[in-house]
Amino acid sequence: MTTLDQTVADSTLTDPTPTNRTPTEAAATAAPAHGIPDPAVLVARRRPGHVLEGPFYTSPEIFALDIDAVYAKQWIFVATEPEIAEPGDYVTIDLGRYSVIVLRDDDGQVRALHNVCRHRGSRVLLEERGSVGNLVCGYHQWTYATDGRLLHAGEQPPEFDKACFGLRQVAVRTVGGLIFICLATSPPEDFDDVADRIEPYLAPHDLANTKVAAQVDLVEHGNWKLVMENNRECYHCEAGHPELTCTFFPTYGFALEDIPARLMPAHARYLKAGVDLARACDERGLPHAEIEELTDRSTGFRIQREPLDGAGESYTRDGKAACRKLLGDLDIPRLGRLSMHTQPNAWFHFQADHVVTFSVLPLAADRTLVRTTWHVHRDAVEGEDYDLDHLTEVWSRTNEQDGEFVARTQAGVSSPAFVPGPYSSSEYQVDALVTWYLQRLQEHLGR
Amino acid sequence: MTTLDQTVADSTLTDPTPTNRTPTEAAATAAPAHGIPDPAVLVARRRPGHVLEGPFYTSPEIFALDIDAVYAKQWIFVATEPEIAEPGDYVTIDLGRYSVIVLRDDDGQVRALHNVCRHRGSRVLLEERGSVGNLVCGYHQWTYATDGRLLHAGEQPPEFDKACFGLRQVAVRTVGGLIFICLATSPPEDFDDVADRIEPYLAPHDLANTKVAAQVDLVEHGNWKLVMENNRECYHCEAGHPELTCTFFPTYGFALEDIPARLMPAHARYLKAGVDLARACDERGLPHAEIEELTDRSTGFRIQREPLDGAGESYTRDGKAACRKLLGDLDIPRLGRLSMHTQPNAWFHFQADHVVTFSVLPLAADRTLVRTTWHVHRDAVEGEDYDLDHLTEVWSRTNEQDGEFVARTQAGVSSPAFVPGPYSSSEYQVDALVTWYLQRLQEHLGR
Amino acid sequence: MTTLDQTVADSTLTDPTPTNRTPTEAAATAAPAHGIPDPAVLVARRRPGHVLEGPFYTSPEIFALDIDAVYAKQWIFVATEPEIAEPGDYVTIDLGRYSVIVLRDDDGQVRALHNVCRHRGSRVLLEERGSVGNLVCGYHQWTYATDGRLLHAGEQPPEFDKACFGLRQVAVRTVGGLIFICLATSPPEDFDDVADRIEPYLAPHDLANTKVAAQVDLVEHGNWKLVMENNRECYHCEAGHPELTCTFFPTYGFALEDIPARLMPAHARYLKAGVDLARACDERGLPHAEIEELTDRSTGFRIQREPLDGAGESYTRDGKAACRKLLGDLDIPRLGRLSMHTQPNAWFHFQADHVVTFSVLPLAADRTLVRTTWHVHRDAVEGEDYDLDHLTEVWSRTNEQDGEFVARTQAGVSSPAFVPGPYSSSEYQVDALVTWYLQRLQEHLGR
Repeated sequence: MTTLDQTVADSTLTDPTPTNRTPTEAAATAAPAHGIPDPAVLVARRRPGHVLEGPFYTSPEIFALDIDAVYAKQWIFVATEPEIAEPGDYVTIDLGRYSVIVLRDDDGQVRALHNVCRHRGSRVLLEERGSVGNLVCGYHQWTYATDGRLLHAGEQPPEFDKACFGLRQVAVRTVGGLIFICLATSPPEDFDDVADRIEPYLAPHDLANTKVAAQVDLVEHGNWKLVMENNRECYHCEAGHPELTCTFFPTYGFALEDIPARLMPAHARYLKAGVDLARACDERGLPHAEIEELTDRSTGFRIQREPLDGAGESYTRDGKAACRKLLGDLDIPRLGRLSMHTQPNAWFHFQADHVVTFSVLPLAADRTLVRTTWHVHRDAVEGEDYDLDHLTEVWSRTNEQDGEFVARTQAGVSSPAFVPGPYSSSEYQVDALVTWYLQRLQEHLGR
Repeated sequence: MTTLDQTVADSTLTDPTPTNRTPTEAAATAAPAHGIPDPAVLVARRRPGHVLEGPFYTSPEIFALDIDAVYAKQWIFVATEPEIAEPGDYVTIDLGRYSVIVLRDDDGQVRALHNVCRHRGSRVLLEERGSVGNLVCGYHQWTYATDGRLLHAGEQPPEFDKACFGLRQVAVRTVGGLIFICLATSPPEDFDDVADRIEPYLAPHDLANTKVAAQVDLVEHGNWKLVMENNRECYHCEAGHPELTCTFFPTYGFALEDIPARLMPAHARYLKAGVDLARACDERGLPHAEIEELTDRSTGFRIQREPLDGAGESYTRDGKAACRKLLGDLDIPRLGRLSMHTQPNAWFHFQADHVVTFSVLPLAADRTLVRTTWHVHRDAVEGEDYDLDHLTEVWSRTNEQDGEFVARTQAGVSSPAFVPGPYSSSEYQVDALVTWYLQRLQEHLGR
Repeated sequence: MTTLDQTVADSTLTDPTPTNRTPTEAAATAAPAHGIPDPAVLVARRRPGHVLEGPFYTSPEIFALDIDAVYAKQWIFVATEPEIAEPGDYVTIDLGRYSVIVLRDDDGQVRALHNVCRHRGSRVLLEERGSVGNLVCGYHQWTYATDGRLLHAGEQPPEFDKACFGLRQVAVRTVGGLIFICLATSPPEDFDDVADRIEPYLAPHDLANTKVAAQVDLVEHGNWKLVMENNRECYHCEAGHPELTCTFFPTYGFALEDIPARLMPAHARYLKAGVDLARACDERGLPHAEIEELTDRSTGFRIQREPLDGAGESYTRDGKAACRKLLGDLDIPRLGRLSMHTQPNAWFHFQADHVVTFSVLPLAADRTLVRTTWHVHRDAVEGEDYDLDHLTEVWSRTNEQDGEFVARTQAGVSSPAFVPGPYSSSEYQVDALVTWYLQRLQEHLGR
């Protein structure tokens, strides 16, 4: 017989059980023959510094929990003020099974309203974006003002009190032209503190006076956390993002002592560019120092102005500005990137010539919408001041590449054979995201 | 900082908790963190006069319950006798996961049989309609007579008793040419009473001697109850159905005291047409009085002969008959519409010149088949006595419009932010349908 | 009133309750209003000699159980050695949510590795087949040798021990060129015994020195057990497989006393061909006697060399060889078919001129992949020694026809009205498959 003996040789390769489990945890793992362990058990037994277990990315139950504990409770970045520049302008946002209208009311205020008629529950607005005078439900013509008040409902008895049937309000905040909503009735209170601290960084770019040059919706085939985790490290950039690494220093995320020798020339360029940038900022009063509070608070964030490689001006192949009209009162293009992360669903790059925002919205356990929006000066003229393909090239390609990474990881972690591996030091912001996420689950489950 | 303060202003707008809940109900709501409350709790806490809560339209569990408690227990309208005019003619009907053969057997009787071979369970008939001599399962050639008896099964041992392996029978009743089936072993007994009372209304139209001029299957993207609820009111007709409201009086469903001033001219026309219609009916011995027993019985129904607007003859844009050959022995076209509702899944319009039937069959929690069938006199010749587009225009357009209403409502009630609103008086038949439905669930859950 | 009375006439036709249930079983059936009975109850109450109940084919819970108890525990046929002829050649196999790399390592050994990077869980190889030097995860470039050892992982701290992060091994065995894997950590030990006994049958065909002439993946719309059950009987062949029955004796599976009169001429041909075949085999030392151990052991199997009808050489319309180059050292083409079944997922036909293998891989409760692979002598030249269409015609057509049978059965057994029917004597191997399957479930559930 020609059968080859392939008996497993190395028990360290095949033992899926982390060695530091308590008996209780081991029992919990074994218990549910079909289905997943209790989420609280999964949260409790996460190994620090390691990737989450598979069910966090694949289980519909945990997806529902993520919506409840994270997307329906935290401040979520959903749009920018230039998207709804005029009174009556709106966008509709799907968050899990919620649909929310984000609009500018007749008084110019930004508002968020549940997109559900108070009569029979029909969606009021069907389009992704548009402009309205009033909000009229197309089913039975219940009519609401842009601030949500019910103005008209036909065939109602005398005792019907219109004041009780306005569209339900959603909490909303704006900072530096960015619009965040929170579906909870008691939104995290720390947003104002965060806003106070980041507003000076953002304000000089005057986002409110930009226009949307392009917006791309990409549906990635993976869990929203894989999308975010991928964003929070550049360990994969050097091999995975040829366009991005023209200007994105490949040492992003590395602790100094972990930078490999082959990256030291890049690090030297980075240090030099950093000195130049600090000087330019200080001369103009632009804040640039890092603030990093990614965990231990509801509105986790990170902000820092950092140099770009190449010409150092913008996310283009050569690093030169993609738009000739600079934003706000900025007088030089070489101001690197003002980069900000907000937990759980966004990142932002503000350059002197344009702003790119990224909003990550979960669609299902294994599907996620990534909305990328490029903003240029309101008066910039396409074809004259900027070329659209040139403006969007780096992040369009980068997003597509990241979509592939997310899809292959979703497929991999779906295997019951998946064992969470360790993060390297250059993935510390991934660890921070995961830690922040587990803190939110604990808060939610603990109540 | 430019953040606008959008703190929720009006607690009546944002509090999703109806004020009249008991603590028990509130606890029940809070209990299942993921998933829906117990259906019995949802049934018990329904606010009278209000729309059902969201899970009734979105939950797969409640969809399964609907099949068990309603579609597998009640009399369901599925086809008409002209669809199976000759012995061997059949249609196959999908009801949830059931497949049922409705056919005319060799003795001319209408029968219903489960479409499942008694051997290995293969579907016996794969087509939606056709004509057969015997019913032969294509897998192993087990062969059944049109009355369901097993005639032949190959390779069986001597002790095999063919009498034990006939196709399983499904209860069936016909009235006025309409075919109803009931999947339960003990079908509701009140069908005969209903049949006795509606048969005199239907008989003069002699549906059994019509032919099918057209049949359209429309898959609507909403729960079957949204499809039915939409049918049970015309609050949405004036704005939503331009073709239908040419002849459908827009005051349908209104209590007299609730008719708005702007509809009083239509109401005056309606009253005049009603007097004319009553006289024409009385002269011919045609029953026309309303019978309305929509709740409190298994076979809930409503029947009434009502005038049509315009020429008053048929559902066409100008109200004139769409077919020159009148049905049965009817001698004038201006006999309005004999309209009937049967719970849970059908409505019917019998005119002097044609009959339209509507059968609503659930496919999933959020998908529903609406089958519309137009019947004209058996001897009517297409292109001569009737034009197909003209005959089908009003209800084809109306169905498509209703499909849009259903889809936008399905999307809306899927939001966790949906709060059931109040029915207006003109929606009293929607309330009746919902009440009938909840009674059936209570009966089912109570056992 | 014209209603016809169709009351159910024959209680034996309509009573879905098998008469031999204990009260406990009846209660268990009634208990779960929505959902399925406990699988252990379903297993326990199976009526011997009868088809399984519907949930075995439709329930996602039982599908997950099947993966756990059968596909992740038993030896599963997944590929042949010629598919990975050279070091570095690989195929990736999806088994439920597992992805497994089957490859030939640098030492020429066949290996199986979980296709999950030990870092963040990304799939390592994305293609269905190919050839590699090392296995490099495309996300962060972790690099593994073809034996699974981790060779390189960037940016790791000094204490990182590469020996702990090799790709997880999967048990693998080959016999006669066929590759079986087992996902369990303690694979069934009886494989070696089976291999010892079948290897003499297979060896003369020298599969390892063939090449793949064609491979077809067919997704059938039914549960994997319906696919397998369909394979295990030829009761349906006479009416269902015109191409196959040119050479496949239609008495396959019949006990002698059950062969119907009309098939006696075919049986006479079969007996004559059998005598001829036995003589030819005995002269050449080829084993041909039946071994049938389909139940009562983990690695259930059946093997026998049997005559073919017509020219008796191969599965073609006229029974003549499809390839002029015979396999191994075989010197005459008329050696019938060496047919082998292995539980749970494969069958094989070895002829003198070619080998066809069939691997059944479950995709979902109602979708199954059937992979068919035709092998000819490594030196055979397409267009000269064999014609591809001619080689593949019989089994391509047969598979397509079987796919239709499976789909109609899946639809039928999904009806709640389905009552499992009795197997005929010619379906005894179906019964054996089902019995083997239930034994495995009992073993799994009993622990």
